[in-house]
Amino acid sequence: MITLNRLFDVEPWKIVENTLNTKDFRLAESVMSLGNGHMGMRGNFEEKYSGDFHQGSYIAGVWFPDKTRVGWWKNGYPNYFGKVINSTNFIGINVLLNSQELDLFSETIKDYSRELDMKHGVLTRSFTVIQDKKETSVKVTRFLSIAEKELAVIKYEIIPLNYDGDVTFIPYLDGDIRNEDSNYEEDFWVEVNKEVSSFEGSLTMKTKDNPFNTPTFHLTTTMKVEIDGPVRSVTSSIENEYVDNQIDLELTKGQSTTLYKYVAVTTDRDHEVGDLVQVGKDLLSKNIEKGYQQILKEHQEQWFKRWEIADVEIDGDPEAQQGIRFNLFQLFSTYYGEDSRLNIGPKGFTGEKYGGATYWDTEAYALPLYLATATPDVAENLLRYRHKQLDGAFHNARQQGLKGALYPMVTFTGVECHNEWEITFEEIHRNGAIAYAIYNYVNYTGDKGYLKRNGIDVLSSISRFWADRVHYNNKKEVYMIHGVTGPNEYENNVNNNWYTNLMAVWTLKYTLEVIEYLQSNNLDEHLKTLDLTDAEIAKWKEITEKMYFPYDKELDIFVQHDTFLDKDLIHASTLSPEERPLNQKWSWDKILRSCFIKQADVLQGMYFLNHEFTLSEKKKNFDFYEPMTVHESSLSPSIHAVLAAELGLEEKAFEMYHRTARLDLDNYNNDTEDGLHITSMTGAWLSIVQGFAGMRTANEALSFAPFIPASWNFYQFNIVYRDHYIKLNVCKDSVKISQQGSDLTLTLYGEKVQIPSEGTVIIPLKQKETTLQ
Amino acid sequence: MITLNRLFDVEPWKIVENTLNTKDFRLAESVMSLGNGHMGMRGNFEEKYSGDFHQGSYIAGVWFPDKTRVGWWKNGYPNYFGKVINSTNFIGINVLLNSQELDLFSETIKDYSRELDMKHGVLTRSFTVIQDKKETSVKVTRFLSIAEKELAVIKYEIIPLNYDGDVTFIPYLDGDIRNEDSNYEEDFWVEVNKEVSSFEGSLTMKTKDNPFNTPTFHLTTTMKVEIDGPVRSVTSSIENEYVDNQIDLELTKGQSTTLYKYVAVTTDRDHEVGDLVQVGKDLLSKNIEKGYQQILKEHQEQWFKRWEIADVEIDGDPEAQQGIRFNLFQLFSTYYGEDSRLNIGPKGFTGEKYGGATYWDTEAYALPLYLATATPDVAENLLRYRHKQLDGAFHNARQQGLKGALYPMVTFTGVECHNEWEITFEEIHRNGAIAYAIYNYVNYTGDKGYLKRNGIDVLSSISRFWADRVHYNNKKEVYMIHGVTGPNEYENNVNNNWYTNLMAVWTLKYTLEVIEYLQSNNLDEHLKTLDLTDAEIAKWKEITEKMYFPYDKELDIFVQHDTFLDKDLIHASTLSPEERPLNQKWSWDKILRSCFIKQADVLQGMYFLNHEFTLSEKKKNFDFYEPMTVHESSLSPSIHAVLAAELGLEEKAFEMYHRTARLDLDNYNNDTEDGLHITSMTGAWLSIVQGFAGMRTANEALSFAPFIPASWNFYQFNIVYRDHYIKLNVCKDSVKISQQGSDLTLTLYGEKVQIPSEGTVIIPLKQKETTLQ
Repeated sequence: MITLNRLFDVEPWKIVENTLNTKDFRLAESVMSLGNGHMGMRGNFEEKYSGDFHQGSYIAGVWFPDKTRVGWWKNGYPNYFGKVINSTNFIGINVLLNSQELDLFSETIKDYSRELDMKHGVLTRSFTVIQDKKETSVKVTRFLSIAEKELAVIKYEIIPLNYDGDVTFIPYLDGDIRNEDSNYEEDFWVEVNKEVSSFEGSLTMKTKDNPFNTPTFHLTTTMKVEIDGPVRSVTSSIENEYVDNQIDLELTKGQSTTLYKYVAVTTDRDHEVGDLVQVGKDLLSKNIEKGYQQILKEHQEQWFKRWEIADVEIDGDPEAQQGIRFNLFQLFSTYYGEDSRLNIGPKGFTGEKYGGATYWDTEAYALPLYLATATPDVAENLLRYRHKQLDGAFHNARQQGLKGALYPMVTFTGVECHNEWEITFEEIHRNGAIAYAIYNYVNYTGDKGYLKRNGIDVLSSISRFWADRVHYNNKKEVYMIHGVTGPNEYENNVNNNWYTNLMAVWTLKYTLEVIEYLQSNNLDEHLKTLDLTDAEIAKWKEITEKMYFPYDKELDIFVQHDTFLDKDLIHASTLSPEERPLNQKWSWDKILRSCFIKQADVLQGMYFLNHEFTLSEKKKNFDFYEPMTVHESSLSPSIHAVLAAELGLEEKAFEMYHRTARLDLDNYNNDTEDGLHITSMTGAWLSIVQGFAGMRTANEALSFAPFIPASWNFYQFNIVYRDHYIKLNVCKDSVKISQQGSDLTLTLYGEKVQIPSEGTVIIPLKQKETTLQ
Repeated sequence: MITLNRLFDVEPWKIVENTLNTKDFRLAESVMSLGNGHMGMRGNFEEKYSGDFHQGSYIAGVWFPDKTRVGWWKNGYPNYFGKVINSTNFIGINVLLNSQELDLFSETIKDYSRELDMKHGVLTRSFTVIQDKKETSVKVTRFLSIAEKELAVIKYEIIPLNYDGDVTFIPYLDGDIRNEDSNYEEDFWVEVNKEVSSFEGSLTMKTKDNPFNTPTFHLTTTMKVEIDGPVRSVTSSIENEYVDNQIDLELTKGQSTTLYKYVAVTTDRDHEVGDLVQVGKDLLSKNIEKGYQQILKEHQEQWFKRWEIADVEIDGDPEAQQGIRFNLFQLFSTYYGEDSRLNIGPKGFTGEKYGGATYWDTEAYALPLYLATATPDVAENLLRYRHKQLDGAFHNARQQGLKGALYPMVTFTGVECHNEWEITFEEIHRNGAIAYAIYNYVNYTGDKGYLKRNGIDVLSSISRFWADRVHYNNKKEVYMIHGVTGPNEYENNVNNNWYTNLMAVWTLKYTLEVIEYLQSNNLDEHLKTLDLTDAEIAKWKEITEKMYFPYDKELDIFVQHDTFLDKDLIHASTLSPEERPLNQKWSWDKILRSCFIKQADVLQGMYFLNHEFTLSEKKKNFDFYEPMTVHESSLSPSIHAVLAAELGLEEKAFEMYHRTARLDLDNYNNDTEDGLHITSMTGAWLSIVQGFAGMRTANEALSFAPFIPASWNFYQFNIVYRDHYIKLNVCKDSVKISQQGSDLTLTLYGEKVQIPSEGTVIIPLKQKETTLQ
């Protein structure tokens, strides 16, 4: 039903491309992206490429408030659209072979290969160029060190196979880079400083002053070049926003000539502006002294450590194996929790679309993975990020004329920077996810101390928003929430979206619980400063008791919103392949009126508050909604995989797993050329851990209920749970759980199991209940 | 409740400003606009003005497809946004008094006065400038001839009151003009030709080539200057997109010096490109030969003729009198039906906002006036305009994936050129107004021949659209229309907007009637070519029988849309003045969720299909909806005035009349600085003729049921009805109707009345029934 576009070989630890795909070049560029949390880039070529491509290098936390573009302005819109900005191209190395510029778009080449080595975090490219019967072998290696975050390294190796000749390398730094998605084709950068001499150069760019008074950033890229080969001459040139070296060498048939380009990427987020160049130079000197091999080794060792904790092994399904590793690799390349000023952008360092750094995706989809695969401070950093942005959230609510805090749909600072009214003004369920993340964190880690100050600040502010956003329907004597867009963005401006109402009421209930907890444990010193009145608390309570939830008695399902059942209700399976994805093939009018659901909506609520619904409720709603769901949001398949697994719908769970795990590798949504779907990359992990292995953590109790897909021999993964380091292995006939930490009690298939410190438990794999199917 | 901003004196035939309002300069510029159907302009000063102002001259039918600006693209959006374009400034005359440039923003002046003389179609300005005790009296007269449409005339007279000195006049043509609302600050014009010599000059501009393949336009402005005074020297200069003369004169104390600037404004819409300059010169020569006084006289005579037919006299209420004349003046300045390629833009020639030439306003609000105050061919031209654009309407429907014709919200060519999804994709009720206009025209004029070809083309195409746009609700066994925006644009994406459903069903019924009429009268030759199948016809019939209309039994009202009654229903009178207008003070989110109604919605249906509803139905719905209506669309008050009058709510009718009649004069909606609300200017006329006088024409029967507002002594107006020319005079105690034409039977207060050819009938004024109140 969906046409896939798979460009890459299936290998457990690598993404391999053996053909230069000029037609799908951008798609391959996205997939071949590298990142190290501090910076990242698309899989661009170092040398010239005259075909269609998208040069993209991005630095974490460096953004620009682009002038907004809307049709007709609506009151409440933010003033600017915050953008991750495309920055200095520091990987560039133009290459002239015998005075002819190397350009793979127009060359005759053979033995082309590009490999993303996920185990070691290295991108390599190799090919043989044939020019007038002269054959030259080229091999390029690139990595962004995760041991030394400000360091990028390129090794460019050339061997003339059947001739003697010349090569010219022109390593350069080019600051004349523009966002493709700039609303007014505006350049966001100005040059501040540049210097160049033999084998080195430096370029400092600064983001333009802007009328919105958001911070500006300085970015310095500093390069040093080493050559292993017979250099004939070196010259340098300096142009507007550009510096380069021009290095001429003699080539001898069969002999290798190698250029090493080391680049330091430093910004005034981390250093004084005046020090940027020197810091870069020092960093390069220090590292070059170590030598290429040592730098690479240190980088790889860090990747080994990451994989040691987080790797998920799957035996018997190479595509599934490659998919989960690709997701984890790109996710960790984007964010590994070291910097609490950062968050997880929807495209990471792989593209520009969507703008902004932070979406509700972080809380809804990414937090569980970081809770389970890193130390608690990483997850806490994600929460603190939102707490720090509370002022922005107050601002957003005020913009709508409402009390309390409205966390933004898209932001860098807490202030909303997206503007489509149906999203910005209406997709307010995001506020529920922010509150839910606090519950999730505290419940998972047991760190109730977080509630005392930051937690209650955010919870009470969100609750105040909900209490002002509802209205009372006098006739029906219920509270309602009108004019919202639910998680299903294929419907806008609906009334009483069940999920939004659910999360609003849940937030109010949880906030009331937390207040009670703080008060009864004498932890309410900070709480008292928040001026919550009795009337306010009473109103919150009343809303939780009198909220309206659309429900259909006949179908015994929760109704997505007031008039959903009035639609022409048909299954997505009736759509033809030519119509998919709908968002590219159908008019918006047709999409809005159709019953087709972009991503989990009612089911998103059953996923979050899983423990509050019966299996029968989950089953009925899943059976009703999933067939109408087109999963055209990258966030959709994982939620369905988890629920399908719980319901014993193993085939559906397996299908959804593949869809989320290989979303970008197989370009399911036909938009990976714009960049990878970073924030939904936790989906594969969620599908395996919460889905196939059935991990649940509600009410501070850990449980599993694993099954194994029919085609798999085994799968295994590790999780960090409080002070336990747990390894779970599921094979055809058994489940093996071992743990490091104090004695652990958990639930396995509904039965309590004790695992002693450093102990292991093995029990038989249980077949899923299928009575409900 | 509403704060008014009245800058002008109240006079029956004039708009007079006695203070130079630098703060509200744009507002005054809008009100002081002139137009002659071929061209028009804001009330800009001829000489330099360094304060805030908006230079605006517009030429009918000359437009440009501006690159669109939206937030996130939605499938189905049009490619461009069509704009009326700001054109060469041809009125400009810089003036130097004793070498000092005249600039009213910074001068000391006294006796300032600006007058728009509506009876004669002339704008004058007079003032005395005081520079170093030297006093100079200035008087400027400007008109755009309606006798010679391509001719503009300015008379600029100077008298040094207490000194001898110099004056320099610099009459110029400036083509370097840009739309303020250009999306990308783009210039839409390029220079093609210019020439200048003593006392004359010419400038030809061409609209830029555009990537959308819409037509380009050439605009030539040609000036000739005459001087009545002692010329010392004349020089000319030519610059980029600019030509001028510089004329130095000696001034003698107490003696008048006068400059006449005659400008011909010619375009390739009317002439060959190569002839434009010569045509302009010939036109100027011919007219200058006549002399200023004669040109003015011919212009004024045409205005007398217009007023003779259309003037509405009101005795006892100077504000009301001024209001209706201002509306008629500006309306006729925009469109007087001479050119079937043109339509009535929402801002006419007075501003840029909204873009586009044609809205549903024409059919819904303007057609009745042109039907009654002009020969039938004028109204037919408005219909033909839409018939000619049927291909565009097919295109628009295809863009949404739908069959048939969807007339655009905003257009020049029939192709939609507006893009806010909630308007373009959803405000489809406009299609109903296009169909209704055909009924209105045929019913009013009796010209059934129009149905044979053009009429049935449009009706069947719109019906095909409706039949594809509805969906069948299997559960409730009714047809529904989801995802629409009704006339109340303060709600978007609602389901089953009662008005939209009503007009859809009405269109289908009327189309079926017309088909039956054509078939049974052997007029179906063209109809047969339209390939309407029996199944299609049957489907249409079924929809008319099974359409769902929201209705509340308890309140006994038609419900605006499915969930309207779930809102917090409060009256607009509870809003504070600081909150008005809502669209400027409230967030869009708050507006959408509120019950407040921008303009007649359910009541719009009761206005159009007035004869299909009982008085009791009208009363109940009026009483329910009007109190929630904020009338923030300029189209709102008139409809409410008509219905209030019918319901005997005389005070409400009177309030609504004033609001529509003086909307711009008193700047009710706080946006007149952007331009006048041209298309809603028929509102005052509708309020008097259909409201106070109760004129109805449904079912080919003419009727009246007049009342007179308490403060008025009498009012009278004329209408053309078929071959009758009818004059109606309503005074405190009687109604007098006289007519020219064959014997006429009409209904007066429900009773048949015969008026013989050239006869008059006088009957006592009847008091309104108030039993329903």
